[in-house]
Amino acid sequence: MGVQFRQVVIVGVGLIGGSLGLVLKQKGLAGSVVGVGRRIENLEKAVELHAIDRYETDVRNAIHDADLVVLATPVQTYASHLRDWGQTLQSGAIVSDVGSVKGGLVEEAEKLLPAAVHFVGAHPIAGREKSGVAYASPNLFDGARCLVTPTKQTDPQALEAICQLWEAAGSIVLSMDPFVHDWVLGSVSHLPHVAAFGLMHALDDLQAQMEAPVDLLDFSGGGLRDTTRIAASSPEMWRDISLANRQNLVRMIETYIQHLEKFKDLLEKEDEVGLVEVMTKAKELRERLK
Amino acid sequence: MGVQFRQVVIVGVGLIGGSLGLVLKQKGLAGSVVGVGRRIENLEKAVELHAIDRYETDVRNAIHDADLVVLATPVQTYASHLRDWGQTLQSGAIVSDVGSVKGGLVEEAEKLLPAAVHFVGAHPIAGREKSGVAYASPNLFDGARCLVTPTKQTDPQALEAICQLWEAAGSIVLSMDPFVHDWVLGSVSHLPHVAAFGLMHALDDLQAQMEAPVDLLDFSGGGLRDTTRIAASSPEMWRDISLANRQNLVRMIETYIQHLEKFKDLLEKEDEVGLVEVMTKAKELRERLK
Repeated sequence: MGVQFRQVVIVGVGLIGGSLGLVLKQKGLAGSVVGVGRRIENLEKAVELHAIDRYETDVRNAIHDADLVVLATPVQTYASHLRDWGQTLQSGAIVSDVGSVKGGLVEEAEKLLPAAVHFVGAHPIAGREKSGVAYASPNLFDGARCLVTPTKQTDPQALEAICQLWEAAGSIVLSMDPFVHDWVLGSVSHLPHVAAFGLMHALDDLQAQMEAPVDLLDFSGGGLRDTTRIAASSPEMWRDISLANRQNLVRMIETYIQHLEKFKDLLEKEDEVGLVEVMTKAKELRERLK
Repeated sequence: MGVQFRQVVIVGVGLIGGSLGLVLKQKGLAGSVVGVGRRIENLEKAVELHAIDRYETDVRNAIHDADLVVLATPVQTYASHLRDWGQTLQSGAIVSDVGSVKGGLVEEAEKLLPAAVHFVGAHPIAGREKSGVAYASPNLFDGARCLVTPTKQTDPQALEAICQLWEAAGSIVLSMDPFVHDWVLGSVSHLPHVAAFGLMHALDDLQAQMEAPVDLLDFSGGGLRDTTRIAASSPEMWRDISLANRQNLVRMIETYIQHLEKFKDLLEKEDEVGLVEVMTKAKELRERLK
C-alpha cells in the first residue's frame, strides 16, 4: 500500500531536494520526478545521479500534471512561487516544502493557494555543512526527524500522504505547530549556528589583538573544531534562515549573551562555587543530549 | 639514545598524569614511576593499569630520589606544592607540569625552587571531555601538540629532556612564551568552552520561555551536539583553568559578545549583504582549521 504520487515536481534540486528525488525514485514512490531550477548544469547533474527523471527551468511547464509539488528553495521565495503558479495546480494537488522556518509562512502559503490545493509544511532535519545535489543521498533522511507543521486548515489526507512520504524516507515524523517549530529550531539549530559564526569572528579578532607572530588557528584542538564545525555552512542558506526566523533569533541571541555575561561576572568575582554550579548544570544538560 | 629518567614522580594521577605514566613505562623512559595522589582507590587503579609502579599519598616520601617530578594537579596547587617540597629535591632534578595555563605561574614556580632544580613548563594539548585514570591511554598524546614554555631562566638541557619526553609520547613539541601560551589557549580552547557552557544555559532558558509542552533537547541535531560537546567537560577542572586564565578570558568573552551583538544588529536591520559577509568570513576561517 503506502503513498504513491503520479508526478512530483521538486522546485530547487540541491542537497535536500536532490536527496528527496533519490528517495522518491529508489522507493518507487513517484511515477515521475521533475526537477525545477535555474542552473542547467546542476539539473543535468541531478538527472545523471537519477535524483530526477527530467527537468524544467520554468515551474509552469512542469506543474499542470503534478499531484505533489515540493518547495526546496529558500523560504523567502515561497510567496512569489505560489503567486506565480499556485492557481494553475490541479484540484487535489499537494504543495509541501522542506524549509527550516515555518511560522507565518504556512498560513501565507495556504492563502495563496486555491481551496482545492493542500499545503502541508514539512521540515526534514537533515542539515549538513555541505550543500548541492552532488552531496545528495537517499540515506540523508534515514533515522532523522522530520517535523510536519499542520494548521487548522490542513487537509488530513494530504497530511497523511506527506507523513507517509517521510516515513518511507526513513525519518521519524513528528507533528508541531508552525510557530512552536520556529522556536524549537531557533533554539537547537539557528542559535548554535550564530554561536559558531560569532566564535570564528572572535578568534579572528583575538588574532588581531596578538603581537606574537603565532597563528591561533594552528593550535586548534578537537574542541574548537567541533564547536565551530557548523560555521562552515552555506552563507546564502543561513542568511535566508536567519532572516526568516529573525524575531525569535534576536531574542535568542540576547538570551545567550546574558548567560555569557553571567559567566564573565562569575570570573571577575572569582566565584569558584558559582562557576562550578554553572559548569555542572551545563554538563548535566549536555549529557541529556543523545 | 633518547631521554631516560631514573625515577619519575607524577603528582596527580588522572587522565593526563596516568597517560604520561603509561608512556613512561611502555617506552622504557623511566626506571620507576611513582604516582602521588589523595585517593587510594584511584592510585591502586593506576598501579593495576601499569600507569605507575607504586604510589605515595605524601609527595615528600617520593621526592628525594626523583630526577623528574611532573605536576599534573590543578595549576592553583603548584605554589603550595613547591613550597612544601621544592627545597628537598636533589640537585639537577627537573620539575615539569602538564597544566593548561602558564603565564606568571612559570616565573612563580622558578622562584620557589632552588637554583639547582630546573622548572620546565609543558602543556600537552590532549583534552577529552572524560577525566580520570580509567580513561588513560599511552596513545593520548600521539599526534597531539605539546607546548613547552621556556623563560630566560630555563636550563637548556632540562628543556631538551622534556622535549624528548613528549616527542617520545608521539607529540609535536612547540615552544612558546608562557604569556603567549595563555592567549593562544584562551582563544582556541578556553573561550570555546565558555561558549558551549553558555549555549547549554541559553537552551535551558529558551526552554523555560516556551509554553508548548515540547522538550527542546529532543530536537537536537548533529550541529548542536558538536557545538556543545565540550560543555560536558569536568566542572572542577574548568573552574581551575578559567580562573587561572581569567584576565585573558574576560577580555575574550567581551570580544565574543561584541561579535554576537554585531550579528544581532545585522538581523534587526535585515542586512542581507552584511549577513552574507559575516557568514562567508566565518566559513573561510573555519575552513582553515584542519
